[in-house]
Amino acid sequence: MNTYYVVIFTSQRTENDSKGYASMSDKMEELARLQPGFISVESARDHEGHGITVSYWESLEAIQKWKANTAHQVAQQKGKETWYSNYNVQICKIVREYSFKGND
Amino acid sequence: MNTYYVVIFTSQRTENDSKGYASMSDKMEELARLQPGFISVESARDHEGHGITVSYWESLEAIQKWKANTAHQVAQQKGKETWYSNYNVQICKIVREYSFKGND
Repeated sequence: MNTYYVVIFTSQRTENDSKGYASMSDKMEELARLQPGFISVESARDHEGHGITVSYWESLEAIQKWKANTAHQVAQQKGKETWYSNYNVQICKIVREYSFKGND
Repeated sequence: MNTYYVVIFTSQRTENDSKGYASMSDKMEELARLQPGFISVESARDHEGHGITVSYWESLEAIQKWKANTAHQVAQQKGKETWYSNYNVQICKIVREYSFKGND
C-alpha cells in the first residue's frame, strides 16, 4: 500500500441555507479535485445538518497547500462566519484498509 | 497531542430497510462504546443511503479487538449479506487536528 493521507471534516451546519452554501461547497469540491496530490473525496450529511467529509491526499504537503489556497481560505472564513456552527478537522495517515463489494 | 486512531467506514446501504438494520446499528454503537480503548464515534448518512462513520480509538490493538468481537463479527457478516451493497474501511493514525466552535 502506498502511503496516503485523509482529512476528516466533521461539521454542523447552521440554518443559513440561503446564503450560497451549496454553490460554494460544489465549487470547493471542484477546486480540490484540481489540486496536485488530490486523490478523492466523499461526503454525507444527514437531515439534521450533521456532516462528514473525507478527502484523500498523496501527501501532507498537498493537504497544507490546499488549506492555504486563496479561494479555499475565503470559503473557510465564510464557513466560520455563516455556514457552520462548529467543525472538527483531523489530518490522518492511513495505516491499513480493506473493502467489500457485494453482488450487483 | 496523544497518539490516537480513527476507523473510517464509508458505505452504501442496500434498500433492505426492514431487516433489522437500525436496531443492529444502534446495538453495535452501544457495544463499541463499551470496548476498552474506545474514544468516540460519529455518523452521517444522506437520503440516498450513502454513509460515513468515524470511530476514534486509543490504539490499533483496541481497533483489532473490536473487529474480532464476536457480536460484531455477526453484525459484519449480516452487513455483507444484507445491509451494504459496498463499503470501505480505512484505519488511520491522527497526525494533526483543529476545530472551530462558533458563538451560540
